[in-house]
Amino acid sequence: MSKLTATVQSGDWKNEKHVPVIKAPESAKKDESFLVTVVVGEEIAHPNTFEHYIKWIKLYFKPESGKFPIEIATVSFDAHGEAGVFTDYCADVMLKIQESGELMAMSYCNIHGLWENSISITCE
Amino acid sequence: MSKLTATVQSGDWKNEKHVPVIKAPESAKKDESFLVTVVVGEEIAHPNTFEHYIKWIKLYFKPESGKFPIEIATVSFDAHGEAGVFTDYCADVMLKIQESGELMAMSYCNIHGLWENSISITCE
Amino acid sequence: MSKLTATVQSGDWKNEKHVPVIKAPESAKKDESFLVTVVVGEEIAHPNTFEHYIKWIKLYFKPESGKFPIEIATVSFDAHGEAGVFTDYCADVMLKIQESGELMAMSYCNIHGLWENSISITCE
Amino acid sequence: MSKLTATVQSGDWKNEKHVPVIKAPESAKKDESFLVTVVVGEEIAHPNTFEHYIKWIKLYFKPESGKFPIEIATVSFDAHGEAGVFTDYCADVMLKIQESGELMAMSYCNIHGLWENSISITCE
Ligand SMILES: [Fe+3]
Ligand SMILES: [Fe+3]
Ligand SMILES: [Fe+3]
Ligand SMILES: [Fe+3]
Repeated sequence: MSKLTATVQSGDWKNEKHVPVIKAPESAKKDESFLVTVVVGEEIAHPNTFEHYIKWIKLYFKPESGKFPIEIATVSFDAHGEAGVFTDYCADVMLKIQESGELMAMSYCNIHGLWENSISITCE
Repeated sequence: MSKLTATVQSGDWKNEKHVPVIKAPESAKKDESFLVTVVVGEEIAHPNTFEHYIKWIKLYFKPESGKFPIEIATVSFDAHGEAGVFTDYCADVMLKIQESGELMAMSYCNIHGLWENSISITCE
Repeated sequence: MSKLTATVQSGDWKNEKHVPVIKAPESAKKDESFLVTVVVGEEIAHPNTFEHYIKWIKLYFKPESGKFPIEIATVSFDAHGEAGVFTDYCADVMLKIQESGELMAMSYCNIHGLWENSISITCE
Repeated sequence: MSKLTATVQSGDWKNEKHVPVIKAPESAKKDESFLVTVVVGEEIAHPNTFEHYIKWIKLYFKPESGKFPIEIATVSFDAHGEAGVFTDYCADVMLKIQESGELMAMSYCNIHGLWENSISITCE
């Protein structure tokens, strides 16, 4: 079997415009909402044209006691110039967790495929 | 034909927990990114359980020179308590416009159906 | 308030290429899976280019005893010519119901906005 | 970095109910639409309850001359018993390709995470 996951790329977001970046506090209080920002192309902007765009970013959380990621939110960037409207590849969401774990993101470029990244977060 | 749109509800968000609220500046500069927040249940919280939840909010823009709405972003709230993880029904996105128009939102509750709202924005 | 639903169009699908068509049996047995096809542009093909495409079709069911539509499935057509790959605007899904009602569909064209249609189905 | 892709599972679909199965012809004519079925749990049914369900299947195509997968379609299964409505975890879509490659699928269970599979297809 040829693996889809074998095509998923990662890299240093300061040099690679496709990597999804996750911004969150280093620690969060149990059951208290905190802000998470997901962004693609913050340092080096990714194109947003009809032919080449970032389509979505998905955010997951893998609790340290579990093996599987939980899907938290999907942000789909739907406008690529229709009537001159564009979105930035950036979104803020709020979430609550009950244990420490990993925030993980995946993003998709219609030309350059799937990209991933992750950060740790401690739950107090 | 029985119309799906005939089932879509709206209302005063201060009294009705399902209405999607759109927060944006009253005016935005042409081609300069501005922040738009979409939120359901800010004043009166909507449940987030496996059986009853807000599934998504979609944001559209209808330019005043056009007849049709342009889909800007879709935010899907995917966690409803798996491993104690919950999202708030709230997201921030950034967008650019080139003319005045209406920001329009639709949201979906798995029990109470589709809801809509809109605000005007002036492009300078 | 300017209404998003006021922009949603419908029409005769034999003359209008945007209307989502729902194909299902006239009646279905309680709790037995049946096939539903949703399709846009069967009679008159809709373009599928980077600049102009059908983005998604959503299928809902409104039971006759209820007021609100239940989201059944969302099919997103994601390829518009990348590496010469195209989807038709057509999908089959299988579902079970427990009472008679209306199958309702909404579709979105990135240039011509939102469209709707519905058919009745009897549950035996 | 802890990798999301490291959590993605695969397996023999006859023994493992989460694996997305892709059904397509072994070969397809260039630019002629062919049917692709994606299904989870065909041999061993996966639960569909409010607490435990398959949320989506994504279908990709990686042309043999390219490195990156192209997103073809996303099918989201949205009903998990609301008013007694359930979908099967199965969908048919139609697509056209211009060269041989791999059809790849990913699926998500809200409890058991991400799963993948692939098959080869020859373009004549
Ligand atoms: Fe790219
Ligand atoms: Fe509700
Ligand atoms: Fe169109
Ligand atoms: Fe499962």
